[in-house]
Amino acid sequence: MKRRDFLGVTALGVTSLAMSGCHRAEEKHKDGSIKIQKAKKVTLKLATSWPAHFPIMGTGVDNFAKRCFELSDGSLEIKVYPKNILVPALQVFDATSAAQIDAFHSGVYYWKGKNPAFSIFGGMPLGLTSEEMITWMKFGGGYALWREMYAKFNLYPLIGGTTGPQMGGWFKKEINTLSDLKGLKMRIPGLGGEVMKKLGVNPVLLPAGEIYTSLERGTIDATEWVGPALDSMMGFSKAADYYYTGWHEPGSILEITFNKARWEKLSSQHQAIITTATEEMTGTMLQEFRYKNAKALQELPKNVKIKTFPKEMMDAAKIALQEVLTQESKKSPDFKRALKSYQNFYNLNKPFDDISTKNFLEIRG
Amino acid sequence: MKRRDFLGVTALGVTSLAMSGCHRAEEKHKDGSIKIQKAKKVTLKLATSWPAHFPIMGTGVDNFAKRCFELSDGSLEIKVYPKNILVPALQVFDATSAAQIDAFHSGVYYWKGKNPAFSIFGGMPLGLTSEEMITWMKFGGGYALWREMYAKFNLYPLIGGTTGPQMGGWFKKEINTLSDLKGLKMRIPGLGGEVMKKLGVNPVLLPAGEIYTSLERGTIDATEWVGPALDSMMGFSKAADYYYTGWHEPGSILEITFNKARWEKLSSQHQAIITTATEEMTGTMLQEFRYKNAKALQELPKNVKIKTFPKEMMDAAKIALQEVLTQESKKSPDFKRALKSYQNFYNLNKPFDDISTKNFLEIRG
Repeated sequence: MKRRDFLGVTALGVTSLAMSGCHRAEEKHKDGSIKIQKAKKVTLKLATSWPAHFPIMGTGVDNFAKRCFELSDGSLEIKVYPKNILVPALQVFDATSAAQIDAFHSGVYYWKGKNPAFSIFGGMPLGLTSEEMITWMKFGGGYALWREMYAKFNLYPLIGGTTGPQMGGWFKKEINTLSDLKGLKMRIPGLGGEVMKKLGVNPVLLPAGEIYTSLERGTIDATEWVGPALDSMMGFSKAADYYYTGWHEPGSILEITFNKARWEKLSSQHQAIITTATEEMTGTMLQEFRYKNAKALQELPKNVKIKTFPKEMMDAAKIALQEVLTQESKKSPDFKRALKSYQNFYNLNKPFDDISTKNFLEIRG
Repeated sequence: MKRRDFLGVTALGVTSLAMSGCHRAEEKHKDGSIKIQKAKKVTLKLATSWPAHFPIMGTGVDNFAKRCFELSDGSLEIKVYPKNILVPALQVFDATSAAQIDAFHSGVYYWKGKNPAFSIFGGMPLGLTSEEMITWMKFGGGYALWREMYAKFNLYPLIGGTTGPQMGGWFKKEINTLSDLKGLKMRIPGLGGEVMKKLGVNPVLLPAGEIYTSLERGTIDATEWVGPALDSMMGFSKAADYYYTGWHEPGSILEITFNKARWEKLSSQHQAIITTATEEMTGTMLQEFRYKNAKALQELPKNVKIKTFPKEMMDAAKIALQEVLTQESKKSPDFKRALKSYQNFYNLNKPFDDISTKNFLEIRG
């Protein structure tokens, strides 16, 4: 899924935090310490690209804001606004850049129109998993590049969640050969869509509210979304029997991004609070996706057949992806630079992952 | 590796935190806020089972303490003591239980003598990976059981890091068949050692400082430790050519555990700070292990041959493990209960992991 699609869902309201009794002049803690007067309160406005309290991603940012409040003992309040309340869902980047709001929670690949390189920080088909993406960011130079490139837009990004490997999507007919893809109409955006196009698919974009009906009526032959937990909410199993394993979004990264000048004016305590709270949010979101996907998988109706795409299709996808990356590198020096850093980490990580996680999962059986 | 072995390494000193200028009566932040008076300072003593600043694990707890200090704006100071300064490395559990110290950082499986069930909270051969272990703890009921069982010792545990999949160990001779294990002397502790014993291995325990010499002289035929990053520091590649992929510690869990009464007396702010800082610590440790293992793997000398154990050996290990688990369940109702919760999550998670992470890593190639 690209989260652009949440545009089709109604926003519900602003997250409110319980704050009663937090600003008394004197407060006694359980450990007997007394705080005479509190730090001056800082309130930040954060807009998201999702409806209020959207499962896992939206509740993740709600919990992040709550955590910042707790960690600061009430001196840092982050007000979370669902999409379209303060600004339209996909204008959060511009609004934060222009300091109309302080921060946003969204998906990184939305902004490839600003700079093609940004799609790399959001994740890549057939590339790094969530854990690997975060390792690249923190230890392999990814964060430094991302922050340098966002700084040109007066923005300071932090990883704000990740989905784990997403599924390959719902198909009305089984895909047995590469040629079965020819002419297929599939809702699939982003780099995955560009690769599919090279394989003969006709990628289409649809708002969230129209996907189910289009699939049910046969206006489209297939659609990808996220994974069992969120896909079940869309009812796709009533319109398609074949549910394919994933390849195009193995480790998609969400972001909590601040106006850079606003970020730099925060106290070092508040900066540390936000940074640490995003780390917790990211780990918890990955675990919550795993748990809820596993639950939802158990509960899929009997008609659903889990399938893996044919090897010849994945081999062709790998070649097509390299063509797409070469094209983008020629067009954008920033894309080329970010890709080089990404590939350096990929090449460092792959031999180790092959003998550790991958090998272990094979041994486990 | 079981971290018991760090007993053999010299402790270096207490971690000190930069704290200058943090307790003035008035302090102006970058954002202009003025804090007139701070919360009463809380200082906690945390003892570890490792030498000071031990790579990844020891530096992880140093950074955790530093983060707690930053998040609290200096009101929460956690003094980190390396092993054997306040209490011997493997008495941190008892010392915290008795409130001689406030907290400890160690490995969970050390304490199976206290309750056999505790080994399950530390990880299991052929079981859950790090990400899966944490998901079980937070979403599958693991934390609730662990905390209930630790409460009987006046302890409140938090996950305090994880290693990712560990390697299977260094062997002087290649293992081609199950029978090649017969009579082999291998340094391998814990449940992995118990399984190996059933496969004909003679498991031995050695302090860290004696392993290399024993391997080099042929007193032992094999040893496991952690992974390329920490194994390289031990010099094993000079004494053995065959480096086997892992099966017995796929997701070992470290802990930051508090005296329960002391924990409950902390303010809710300080509790939130510690909880969130351990979450950051756990994610970062997993990523740092991945990055440094990948680097160290590249730098292994040419004589090292990476091998995977024969399938017949892993099949036999799975059977032997079930025997060990059945024996332990008969002896300990707590073990049986913890195992049931673990297995329920394992059975929920496995079908999803098979079609997501495992499948993706196979497609990626």
